[in-house]
Order: sequence, then C-alpha cells, then structure tokens
Amino acid sequence: MAHINLPEGLPGIRGPMAFRPQTAKPLNELAEVLLRSENSLTRGERELIATYISSLNDCFYCQHAHGGIAQHYFQCDINYIDAVKKDFESTTISIKLKSLLSIAASVQKGGKQVTPQQIEKAKNQGATDFEIHDTVLIAAAFCMFNRYVDGLGTWAPQERDIYVERGPRRAQEGYLNFDLYK
Amino acid sequence: MAHINLPEGLPGIRGPMAFRPQTAKPLNELAEVLLRSENSLTRGERELIATYISSLNDCFYCQHAHGGIAQHYFQCDINYIDAVKKDFESTTISIKLKSLLSIAASVQKGGKQVTPQQIEKAKNQGATDFEIHDTVLIAAAFCMFNRYVDGLGTWAPQERDIYVERGPRRAQEGYLNFDLYK
Repeated sequence: MAHINLPEGLPGIRGPMAFRPQTAKPLNELAEVLLRSENSLTRGERELIATYISSLNDCFYCQHAHGGIAQHYFQCDINYIDAVKKDFESTTISIKLKSLLSIAASVQKGGKQVTPQQIEKAKNQGATDFEIHDTVLIAAAFCMFNRYVDGLGTWAPQERDIYVERGPRRAQEGYLNFDLYK
Repeated sequence: MAHINLPEGLPGIRGPMAFRPQTAKPLNELAEVLLRSENSLTRGERELIATYISSLNDCFYCQHAHGGIAQHYFQCDINYIDAVKKDFESTTISIKLKSLLSIAASVQKGGKQVTPQQIEKAKNQGATDFEIHDTVLIAAAFCMFNRYVDGLGTWAPQERDIYVERGPRRAQEGYLNFDLYK
C-alpha cells in the first residue's frame, strides 16, 4: 500500500505521475532531455548511469525499469547489467564511462563528494564538460526520482523478466508519452 | 573554480543552467509548479521545506537562496529561519508543517526511510495526500538541485545579506524568468 491514495495498478513512478500530472510534465521532460536527446553519450550509456544510481539508492522499480532499457540498448544479457551495478570497474564498459560512473557514485553520496581528481581523470579519458555536466545531473536527477518512488511507498512488480521484456518498448516510446501516466 | 567551464559571474545553479538551457527549462518548470503554483501549502511553507532540505544536504547556495525567499514570505528575521533548520520542533511553525518537515527529512536520507507512522501523524494533523505528495517531491527535488549545484563545484556569494536582500525580488520573479539564466 502506497502512503497516499494513488491510482491503482500503475507501478513505480507511474502512480504519482498520474496523481499529479502538473509535476509529471517537467519530470518527464527532464528525463527525455537527459536520457534521450542529442548527446555524445549514447542512450545506453545514459540509461546505465541511471540504472547504477538507482541501484545505489536501492530503488527496485527504477533500477529494473532503466536496467531493462539499458539492456536493450547494449544488447546484453541481465548478468552484464548486474555486473555493472555490482562492480563496474571489472566490466568491459569503456574507461571513459567508468570515470563518469565514478563521478556519478560520488554525486549519489552528496555533491561535495565529487573530487577534482575524479574530474581530471574523466577529462583525461576524453570526457567533455557537457558529458560531465549531464552525468552529474543524471545522477542528481535519479537521487530525486528514486526518493519520489520510494518516499511515497509505491508498488512495483517483483519479476525482473517484466522489466526486461518491456525495455525495447520503453526505449522506443521515450518519456513524453503522457498517456502512459493517465 | 567550478569542475567544468561554466559562464562566469553566475552564482549557484545559475551557472549550470546557463551552460545547459535545455535541462534548465524542465528544472525551472518543476520548481515553479512545486514552490509557487496553486497549493494548500503556502509558498512560504514550501520554500521552508526547500530551505530545510538544502540545509540537511549542506548546500550553501540553495539553503540561503531559498532561505531568503522563505524569510520574505514569513516576514521573519534570519534567526527564525536558522532555528527551523537547527531544530524545527522547537519553533512556532504549525504542527502540520512540523509533521511534513519530519517526512521531508526522512526523504533526504532515502525514500525508504519514510515510515507509515510519520504519514499517519501528518494526516492526523490535517495534511492531505496532495500535501504529502508535494512535500515528498519537494524534498526529493532538492536532493537533486543540491547535488547539481555542489556536484559541479559551483561558486556562491558567502555574504548571507545578499540572499536576504534578494528574497523579495526572487519571490516576485518566480522561476520562469529565463533571462536570469542567460
């Protein structure tokens, strides 16, 4: 049972978004710009940052919803996503993405945890100011989304297959399909 | 020095917003809806929640920028704002707002920290589902804004008087005045 009376049958963030469409609009627009608009970081890389932060925040719905989308973009199996969440340094993702995930992990703890050394390392791996900006904001935004989803005690399907199966469709639809939230 | 090359002379969140107007737009729209649009919580109460969360996240710019606006709405002195940040239970704010600040403080730690007892207490003090929703989302949103501001190592004026003096003007202008961010 959610903490407030949300529309029934909508998992995760969809319940609160249907409850309050006026805030859903900028929230979805933010997700669309950060995760899908023109960027030198691929959509898969950005969904992976979102998945990783949601995992650090222990948000079941967000980590699996975005993990399913990341899995679709990377065309990988579920174990690859889990390996990134568990220890991204030991995976085959690019060194640049590793340096950005390191910055994202610091943002998750608190903005002041980001060090000049982490920034320098990312720049040395080819990360641009734009990419660093978006990494920080994606990490910060998922510290919001995760708290929104769990702070209202929302419901989420527990079967991971559901999220994996929905990944391709969600990747195609994007975040501006407001009918989803009605 | 900020971690990335931001437009000069713009304090706090204004630098990153000028750097990336495409994300500034939904961020400002979210702030406008949450902090200023029609609501049974007053604008002052909502700015106070934002101030309190920014204080818990130790974000200098946000806690003083929003503290200055809250001070204007409450027509109080700076000590009153500081007392709320330090120990809101001992202040003269309403019992309902105290119960909402308690929920907000849990959200700041993590979404799952909100307890059914906190929600029940707020409802017993007259808080509606809408007010609880917005309190959770304001708290979550400032966990984003604070991380965005500090995660990029932005600059902020250190004189608190500046923020207090600007409070009335910022309260009047709201968050959709994009010229501010150019």
